[in-house]
Order: sequence, then structure tokens, then C-alpha cells
Amino acid sequence: MTVLSQPKATEVPILVEVVRGQMVESRHRASVAIVDAHGKVAAAWGDIERPIYGRSAIKPLLAIPLVETGAAEQFQVSDAEVALACASHNGEVAHVEAVLAWLSRIGLSIGDLECGPQAPSYDPSYRALILSGQVPTRAHNNCSGKHAGFLTTALFAGEPTAGYIQYEHPVQQRLLGLLESMCGLELSRAARGIDGCGIPVIATPLGNLALAMARMADPHHLSPDRANACERILRSMVGYPFNVAGTDRFCTMIMEGLHGKVAIKVGAEGVYLAALPQLGLGVALKIEDGAARAAEVAMGRILQRLGIMDAAEESALASALRPAVRNWAGTRTGDVRPIEDGQF
Amino acid sequence: MTVLSQPKATEVPILVEVVRGQMVESRHRASVAIVDAHGKVAAAWGDIERPIYGRSAIKPLLAIPLVETGAAEQFQVSDAEVALACASHNGEVAHVEAVLAWLSRIGLSIGDLECGPQAPSYDPSYRALILSGQVPTRAHNNCSGKHAGFLTTALFAGEPTAGYIQYEHPVQQRLLGLLESMCGLELSRAARGIDGCGIPVIATPLGNLALAMARMADPHHLSPDRANACERILRSMVGYPFNVAGTDRFCTMIMEGLHGKVAIKVGAEGVYLAALPQLGLGVALKIEDGAARAAEVAMGRILQRLGIMDAAEESALASALRPAVRNWAGTRTGDVRPIEDGQF
Repeated sequence: MTVLSQPKATEVPILVEVVRGQMVESRHRASVAIVDAHGKVAAAWGDIERPIYGRSAIKPLLAIPLVETGAAEQFQVSDAEVALACASHNGEVAHVEAVLAWLSRIGLSIGDLECGPQAPSYDPSYRALILSGQVPTRAHNNCSGKHAGFLTTALFAGEPTAGYIQYEHPVQQRLLGLLESMCGLELSRAARGIDGCGIPVIATPLGNLALAMARMADPHHLSPDRANACERILRSMVGYPFNVAGTDRFCTMIMEGLHGKVAIKVGAEGVYLAALPQLGLGVALKIEDGAARAAEVAMGRILQRLGIMDAAEESALASALRPAVRNWAGTRTGDVRPIEDGQF
Repeated sequence: MTVLSQPKATEVPILVEVVRGQMVESRHRASVAIVDAHGKVAAAWGDIERPIYGRSAIKPLLAIPLVETGAAEQFQVSDAEVALACASHNGEVAHVEAVLAWLSRIGLSIGDLECGPQAPSYDPSYRALILSGQVPTRAHNNCSGKHAGFLTTALFAGEPTAGYIQYEHPVQQRLLGLLESMCGLELSRAARGIDGCGIPVIATPLGNLALAMARMADPHHLSPDRANACERILRSMVGYPFNVAGTDRFCTMIMEGLHGKVAIKVGAEGVYLAALPQLGLGVALKIEDGAARAAEVAMGRILQRLGIMDAAEESALASALRPAVRNWAGTRTGDVRPIEDGQF
């Protein structure tokens, strides 16, 4: 493995801060790109040309072949399942059972999933699993719905299902081509690595990921099949927000609370993407240090700035937009908040 | 919306990076102070004058009154218990039982602890607790040993035990005076807040926290009672490293692996402190974004730089000094590592 030279340390601004009592305790830096489907940058902070791994935030893009190829239609994949294909789910019972039912319907089983086993991230589900004497399985992996989608597409295309997580497999090569097309750049020589669920991650400039999401939000320049796929994917995400994440999760709360006005998706290491069909915009952000708490607060702030939430929605989402920091006794000891200097 | 100018950013350098495959994925900035007992700065990165909350990293300092007042002697507090008073422990059975035995010996019980209940951070202990049908208690709180120490000191001084976590209580006022004395500055007007376990946190410049640790490491300028207390606390920490943290924890692994040459203590939000008696130095570091993974790697790098580990020790600690990032299938997908530019 060759580690490539560092990108120049372009100034990445502090956009989120963690307050405790009378003082800011920790600070998070972020780059943010807000772009339209023509590639015009509506707003940006930090370095939007630096390549990042989009991680799970690009799952809505990775779901495109499932729908566009006709695989979803052939295998009667429901909108609820398309949402699961875009999910980093909590491993709650409803998520796991839906993935197992989907696999069963296409004639496959849990052993065909090539992601590793992962404990449910929702603690009550984890506790229930332990108490029932079970152990976490591959179906509990937060990416199991995405993997079910990959398997469905491979079956439809007559490709071997084994090895579908490998870079050289037709499933991953199709996704590489899809990313190149949606992001508008050649990626065969891009830096790459392996994701938490075993699939390749491909380094892509932040601004190009925002462009890809803008093209999902405003797909009129895409082929009819791809445009239809993008519309169905976004409709499925906002129609089944629980399937995209789960109880107490930011993705779910925001999509439920904003009633279909935005599709958002988190990725590991502080990545968040959004598609805003009403505005024809895509958003991509990366927290320099990889912190999820900051990615959520930054995404919330951007959605506020973009003017898509009314006062009632903003009020209902207050605890997500500016989350409390609490101690073990439940006392509120601080907040995670956007910086308040008028620039973000 | 337009592209805005950058907020002003104090220069805090990137010292730790997270690599995945062929690219650096996330970056952590840190300030570091290495200081001797006279306050001479041996080395520094970033902003060492900025106040930080020392959080649990200052527990070795907060244990001083327990020993210095004579409370530990009066109540036959063992070195193993002094180590627990300095601990952010995993909530493993051995930790919890030791705290309960200590409380019982001084005539108190779990209800006298004013920290909130916290689930064990060591997952096998958490699973065992669930399977046994129990729920996390205040004794499982990672700070329960520190609280037992506070209660012991209050009993010895004839102070009420109730309310010992409040800023105005004699226990906390004694600790405020202790911090002022060890850090060498007046703190009555310092910014403050509430810690995870309910006690006050007091903002202190990073360099002054390093000074306080240097005075613990090289206590010859302190009063004999305080010097003896400092020596006993450091001896207890390195003598009972499991009690300071627990299974698989960085504090424990480093203190075990370096055979008494350094006492180190982690704090929440990316803080780490160290006392090096052989060198007469104290170390304080704060990760700007609060990440524990970066605080550990930065502390490991500093200990390497200071030349206190031989080749065999460094080799045995390799997986702690440069930890692997693994995916759910167990594949190594990257590393957390110090930057490799020769400056850190």
C-alpha cells in the first residue's frame, strides 16, 4: 500500500463548536460545497477541490444501477427496499427483517452478504439481541440493505454474486462508471481504499460529490432511465426515512421533519450529502476530523440557510439542529452548535 | 448566497492523521505543551496559552488532597484504591467491586455517589451486565473511584458528604485551591462548566496543566506532604494501571508497557496529561476537535520523542502507538498515525 503525498493544507474553517458551560471546549473544521446541476457553485467553505471518500453518504448514488438497470422492477423491489439500499441503518429488528425478506425473495440468504457482522448501533436493539441469546450477523450490518441491492443488480445482470464487493467485480466497476458519470470526472486513477463494509471507496473531490447530488435533485439533463431512477430513489428516501437510518437518527429526523423537501445521507468520517429537488441543488460536506456530531450540525445549519424550513419545522427540529451535551445524570452541560459569526 | 471569506483560525497544527487505503481521510489538530517543574517549556505545538477544560485527565491532580490531608492514611486507602481515584475506568467487575468495597469500608454506599449511572464502556462487561438482568449504576460510572476519593476526604475533614460535587462545597473549593497552586495561577474567575460526572470543570491554560504535571513528576519544590502525595499517586497509577482504565485501554497498555517510566491519564474531548519522573517533565495535550483516537496517538508519539521507550517496548506497543482501522470483517483498512513531516 502506497500512501500518497498530502494535499496542501488549504485553510479549512471552523464551522461547528462544542460549548460546555462558559467556554467553547472543542472545534470542528469543515469544507462545504453547495452546487447546482450545471456545476455552478452556489456557496462554498474550505477546500471543495480536495478529494474525500464519500463513504456511506454516496449510497443514494450507489443505488442508481439497482433502479436504472431494471433490476428493481424485475425483482419487485419496493420503495421501502430502495430506501434500505440507501441506508446506514441502526440494525433494528425492522431493518434486519426487511433485508432478510428481500434476500429470500430473490433466492439468496444471509450467507451471500459479504459485509462483516456488526452490532446494532441502536442500543435498545443491541440489548434485546444480547438478551435473546443471539449474536450480531451480517444482516445487522448498517450496510446490509445496500448489499442486498448490489446482489439484486448482479442477479439481474447474470453476474456471479460471489465477490461482488471486490473492485474488479462488474458490480463495483458499474458503480465506478456511475460515479464518474454523475461526478463528471475520470476516477480510474483516483486514490482508493476499503470501506467498513468491504466495498471500495473512491476519492472524489467534495465539489464533484455535490454536483452528483445536484444532478439527482435536478435530473433533467440525465437520460430518461437515469432521471427516473434518481427521482425514485429520492422519493423512496423521503418516503421511508426510518429505513434510511432509524430511531433517533439525524437523517431520519430531518427527512421526517422536512416532509420530503430534502433527502440527506450521512457517511462515516464526517461526511454528509444532500439533494434538494425544489432548489435543484446538491450539498456535500466533510468535517476535517471525521466527527459525526459536527457533520450533523453543519448539515442542519446549511438546510436552515437554504431557507427550506419554516418556523414550525425549525422549532420541531431544534434538538437535532443544536443538540444538547448531557452528563450521565442527564444535566445539560453544553451544546454542539454552528459558529455564530454571521458567516455560516 | 455567496462564497464567504474564512473565519479567523488560530494556528493549531495537524499532528495526527487517519489513513484509509491510498489517502489521508481525516486530520486532527492538536496543541501540546511539554514543561518542566520550573515552568520552562521544553517543546510546544499550537496554542499552549489557550484555556482548556482538563476533564478527567486531571484526576491525578484531584487525588492529591485525598493523600495530602491524611484522609487516605486514616481510612487505610490502598495504592490500588488511589489508582482508582485517578481512574476513568471501564466499569469492569473488578473496578465496580473495588469501589463498592471502598465505600463500604468508610461507612458509605452507592447512594452517596453523586455521579450519574453509566454503562460499562468495555463491551464484554456491558454484555455481561445485561445478561445478568442488572442495570448500570453510579458505581459503574467511569469516575466512581474519584468520587469515592472525594467522599473519603470529606469524611476525614468532617464536611457534609451531600452535595460534594457542587462548586461551593468545601471538597470542590479545596480542589480549586489545589489546581491554582499546582498550575500557578488564580482561577476564581476562570470559565467553568459541569463535567460528565457532575463536578465543576475549570478552564486552565494548556501550558499550566503541563506545569502542574511537571510538579507532580518533580515535586522537590513542593511541601513535604504534597511531594509525598504526588509520589504516592504516580506510584499507585503505574503500580495498578488496570485500575486507572482497564482492558484494552491506552492508559493501561502504556503504563504497563513502559514499566513505571510514565504516568498518563486521558480526559474527555481529546485531552491527555502525563508525568515523567525520570525526566522531571509534564505533558499536556488537547485535540482541537476532541477526538480520543487522536489524543492517544499524539501522546504515544510524544513519549517516543522523549526517548523513554526502548526498541523492545516500542515494538510491543506498536498496535497502540499506531492503531489499525479495521472494517466489520476484520480487514485492516487504514491506520491512525502521527504526521510524518519530521516536525512531530
